[in-house]
Amino acid sequence: MLVVMRDHATTEEIEHVVERLREAGAEAHLSQGEVKTVIGVIGERELIYSLEMEGFPGVSEVIRVLKPYKLVSREFQSEDTVVRVGGSQVGGGTLAVMAGPCSIESEAQMRTVARAIKDAGGTFLRGGAYKPRSSPYEFQGMGLEGLKLLREAGDEVGLPVVTEVLDVRDADTVAQWADVMQVGARNMQNFMMLEELGRIERPILLKRGLSAKLEEVLSAAEYILKGGNRDVILCERGIRTFETYTRNTLDLAGVAALKTLTHLPIIVDPSHATGRRDLIAPMCRAAIATGADGIMVEVHPDPEHARCDGPQSVDIPAFTAMMVALKPLAALEGKRL
Amino acid sequence: MLVVMRDHATTEEIEHVVERLREAGAEAHLSQGEVKTVIGVIGERELIYSLEMEGFPGVSEVIRVLKPYKLVSREFQSEDTVVRVGGSQVGGGTLAVMAGPCSIESEAQMRTVARAIKDAGGTFLRGGAYKPRSSPYEFQGMGLEGLKLLREAGDEVGLPVVTEVLDVRDADTVAQWADVMQVGARNMQNFMMLEELGRIERPILLKRGLSAKLEEVLSAAEYILKGGNRDVILCERGIRTFETYTRNTLDLAGVAALKTLTHLPIIVDPSHATGRRDLIAPMCRAAIATGADGIMVEVHPDPEHARCDGPQSVDIPAFTAMMVALKPLAALEGKRL
Amino acid sequence: MLVVMRDHATTEEIEHVVERLREAGAEAHLSQGEVKTVIGVIGERELIYSLEMEGFPGVSEVIRVLKPYKLVSREFQSEDTVVRVGGSQVGGGTLAVMAGPCSIESEAQMRTVARAIKDAGGTFLRGGAYKPRSSPYEFQGMGLEGLKLLREAGDEVGLPVVTEVLDVRDADTVAQWADVMQVGARNMQNFMMLEELGRIERPILLKRGLSAKLEEVLSAAEYILKGGNRDVILCERGIRTFETYTRNTLDLAGVAALKTLTHLPIIVDPSHATGRRDLIAPMCRAAIATGADGIMVEVHPDPEHARCDGPQSVDIPAFTAMMVALKPLAALEGKRL
Amino acid sequence: MLVVMRDHATTEEIEHVVERLREAGAEAHLSQGEVKTVIGVIGERELIYSLEMEGFPGVSEVIRVLKPYKLVSREFQSEDTVVRVGGSQVGGGTLAVMAGPCSIESEAQMRTVARAIKDAGGTFLRGGAYKPRSSPYEFQGMGLEGLKLLREAGDEVGLPVVTEVLDVRDADTVAQWADVMQVGARNMQNFMMLEELGRIERPILLKRGLSAKLEEVLSAAEYILKGGNRDVILCERGIRTFETYTRNTLDLAGVAALKTLTHLPIIVDPSHATGRRDLIAPMCRAAIATGADGIMVEVHPDPEHARCDGPQSVDIPAFTAMMVALKPLAALEGKRL
Repeated sequence: MLVVMRDHATTEEIEHVVERLREAGAEAHLSQGEVKTVIGVIGERELIYSLEMEGFPGVSEVIRVLKPYKLVSREFQSEDTVVRVGGSQVGGGTLAVMAGPCSIESEAQMRTVARAIKDAGGTFLRGGAYKPRSSPYEFQGMGLEGLKLLREAGDEVGLPVVTEVLDVRDADTVAQWADVMQVGARNMQNFMMLEELGRIERPILLKRGLSAKLEEVLSAAEYILKGGNRDVILCERGIRTFETYTRNTLDLAGVAALKTLTHLPIIVDPSHATGRRDLIAPMCRAAIATGADGIMVEVHPDPEHARCDGPQSVDIPAFTAMMVALKPLAALEGKRL
Repeated sequence: MLVVMRDHATTEEIEHVVERLREAGAEAHLSQGEVKTVIGVIGERELIYSLEMEGFPGVSEVIRVLKPYKLVSREFQSEDTVVRVGGSQVGGGTLAVMAGPCSIESEAQMRTVARAIKDAGGTFLRGGAYKPRSSPYEFQGMGLEGLKLLREAGDEVGLPVVTEVLDVRDADTVAQWADVMQVGARNMQNFMMLEELGRIERPILLKRGLSAKLEEVLSAAEYILKGGNRDVILCERGIRTFETYTRNTLDLAGVAALKTLTHLPIIVDPSHATGRRDLIAPMCRAAIATGADGIMVEVHPDPEHARCDGPQSVDIPAFTAMMVALKPLAALEGKRL
Repeated sequence: MLVVMRDHATTEEIEHVVERLREAGAEAHLSQGEVKTVIGVIGERELIYSLEMEGFPGVSEVIRVLKPYKLVSREFQSEDTVVRVGGSQVGGGTLAVMAGPCSIESEAQMRTVARAIKDAGGTFLRGGAYKPRSSPYEFQGMGLEGLKLLREAGDEVGLPVVTEVLDVRDADTVAQWADVMQVGARNMQNFMMLEELGRIERPILLKRGLSAKLEEVLSAAEYILKGGNRDVILCERGIRTFETYTRNTLDLAGVAALKTLTHLPIIVDPSHATGRRDLIAPMCRAAIATGADGIMVEVHPDPEHARCDGPQSVDIPAFTAMMVALKPLAALEGKRL
Repeated sequence: MLVVMRDHATTEEIEHVVERLREAGAEAHLSQGEVKTVIGVIGERELIYSLEMEGFPGVSEVIRVLKPYKLVSREFQSEDTVVRVGGSQVGGGTLAVMAGPCSIESEAQMRTVARAIKDAGGTFLRGGAYKPRSSPYEFQGMGLEGLKLLREAGDEVGLPVVTEVLDVRDADTVAQWADVMQVGARNMQNFMMLEELGRIERPILLKRGLSAKLEEVLSAAEYILKGGNRDVILCERGIRTFETYTRNTLDLAGVAALKTLTHLPIIVDPSHATGRRDLIAPMCRAAIATGADGIMVEVHPDPEHARCDGPQSVDIPAFTAMMVALKPLAALEGKRL
């Protein structure tokens, strides 16, 4: 940590900061320029994050150079984490393809879509049983019944299934029926849920929050790893910006940056990022070229009658055609598909 | 709802949209210009929000003119909601002042601060027992023990107490010890928690999410009212923008706008919005001049040793002086303080 | 400047940085923790800003503690700058009120509005002759003819006039007809224009850019002061965020922050910030309570027929009533109105 | 244009709007639901954009369905525009590669870099002679002398040259020395400059502003086309968001969207978008996979001694290696390189 003093801070102000640091058990190193004094602080991560010196007299800025996360960092583990589920995997030279409808609606829908995804080369079946909806007047999902339909459809074609856990109280139920448990963007900083999922033996798909900085994504993942669960998959799904043409702004440079900062695998969800069917295929391509470990795509047998996210879902022929087109690109990037 | 077709959309495309609307039970009204056709859609709120026509062939834009909320709107209830708790209230010509430390740390701390807040004219005592922290290496709060200390300190001086419920599983426990239950910014769209709080007989203080649009704040509140709980207080605490000098960007025009859109009372939290002690007093003044129903301020007997949010906490003399200075302003705005 | 090395940076990497710094003429001070090395760099502002060490091997972050501006800072000049024009002034215990139509449309319009503004207590007459419009299909302003109408209307009632200079080639012409020259938000970083205005003997009203950080506003002002013109008035007019209910997000905490960072006076423009007539009065009040030195308001004798910005303009009776209501508030804040 | 009335707007309010529309020469079509009335407005683009009905009594929202641009749209011209300069081109199945240093520093630097870029397969030489810098204390460029060095270096190796015009007064000078004239992000809405460039016979490279919506980018390009210059190349270079790890947020979905909205070619600049050397190669790949018509990359023979943007510049070996790696990807996307 660096405590930057204001120009011409007084000796008393500097000493006051140093004294507080020593009292807390940290080491303080002064470096004094003509107008600026900077105090370097050395100590444990926990200690550093308990020291908030920003409002002290004479203090201009406080800069934390020790990151708020550790277990998720490349410094802690240099080799890539590979998450293996059933016969599928995320990371490790494979391109994961998680596909399926936004919401589970019926047995027929799930059987149809599962078969098509498997045939096209998809590696995970996704579907929502509990839906987070901005308005209480929107469809909220089929709940437990949906979980069962998802499980059956996945088993029938031999694909592991991914679904969102929306309520911490449902964590065990979801863990019973799903292979991968998704934390949605709105719950990325639901720390109680993250702690709970740290104790569960299921891989976690952690979606980036709408206004989460990369450092906050990594700190959220740290909660899960700290709890003992090392199987975390990150997912970029667009951040909220001033641009309204797309639903969110897909941050692919953030994906490339995360690959350097963490050993965890990262996938990209262009459906939620763009909210527009016609942008899904180019953004899947871009994600693969960026070096992402997988993609997540909303596929529905009949998007015009979907109960949720129809506008950003592709139909089966479009998905199948896209998968054919992605194969040579994945190969070029050294990813099995 | 308005479905705006692309320039020169074909008759087939237009008919396809109209057909889908009628099939769903909505009325469709065509209005055709030389290049543009717009289809007006009439139906119930639930129906409209289940129709997602954005990806249909020939469709350019879909505009929902019916709002995603109802019970919280001025149209539904024109007179202001006043939330009454113990001898205090929020709304109705009174300026509510919720003050106290970011985190509850000890009995001595709470007794000292409660007395000072009461003496200065504060009307609610706040304090955090469960703390949402970005990093697992930061102080997480005292939990149940903290709740008890808060209750005792409030009772001793006769102030109702406000505290955050961080985990839906703690809702009943928090309801047992607190007078007002706070939903933090990171949980504003934790819809399961909102539904639970709709069933609890405690006023809810709902903080705006870091990236929540006004419409989403109102939809979140709608979840609570729809559950049966009408005592909701909104709280503006800054949104996340590109500006980094302040911790967030306080959106006071949003507060003025909310006063026209909803009958619910709204308070302002300059501590979290700015993250800087020296901006709290001017932003409290600005909030009052905007027409806010109250303010929320972090006060700590010794901010330099606070375990959380010290840099944005004021000490007791500063709080007391600020309250003295706010009185004539509140009077000018027609608010009792 | 601080160069923060990556964890366990090698001795070669550290020496490489130090060598480059010395070669450039800067002093380097090492401070080494167990895992982190931080190199403090001491030198002139110009030198520091010419050293970009971010991409050096082993470098994690570079932090500039010396601000990119000097003349505009409180450290350089502690007492408030007061800008005096004709009988009016901005700063120094007076509340400046700049009012008038978005665009100058006719002699009758200007005479009517000028008289009304003067009578209500306004202190500057504003009006646009050159209009920056997002689309080339919108009204672009009356140009030189407009400037003359503005001048005449101002002279007739005895108010100094403010207008925007949109093209650096018009700077001398605008200077000939206007008392205060406005730089619009879209030109805040038109550095060639800023340099030109640094050489002109007219006060400059510098509007904050839509995505300008406070530091960038101050750096833009520094260009003008560095050129020799010390009469700069800053203007907060909203920044661009994800919120769309208001046209922009008014950053009043930024105004309070600027008052601590710079000696220049700062006014607030709620018309452009909110884009909504009904939010102008509350935001004028909030601006005054924040400690702003003035307000800028769009006033039109007939907003429904305005050629520009009608929806965010108030009519004459509304402006007059608002001014009456602002007087006691200004008095409370110690500002003459 | 659609004028959406508030719930239960009165007949007088509706008639008042209709009357104003007819007075202005527009056609009004009413569509009345149980609670909502929507008024469809038909008229010319210029007329529609002169009508601002947002503040009328009873009006809730005004929605413009006619876009503020025309000449740049796919509806106006369905086939792709190809910009040809010297032997190079942008668009039309070729991947343009514009490379060179941020700022022109010396003859040796330019000759070295030009030769290397040509050898690696670059198609344009870029370099800045006039530099827009946030602070007046940063290096401002070599000016005219720089232009000449750029020209000579380009001629020597046979590459057309691209450089920024920063001041509208320099437009003719820059046109004399450069093949393509760049409008920087900070000048994207410098409408006077756009109009001037509409009259000049040089292709224009128009960079997206830091906070410009796609619609605004297209409207800015419309200014140039409306002036008579059809050779406009758009450039995505990152937008400003809350994320600070990267300098800006590269909006590749915006690029894919622009390809559907306009016939103009679009290139991507990962150097300015990310500000980080290690993200340039993955983002060039992602841009190509998105369908961009070209890339712009900062290349410097000695980035550690660059006078500007060193941290985001690649050196010659890195550029050469990257170009080799891009060739099969470009081929896969059907682009000549």
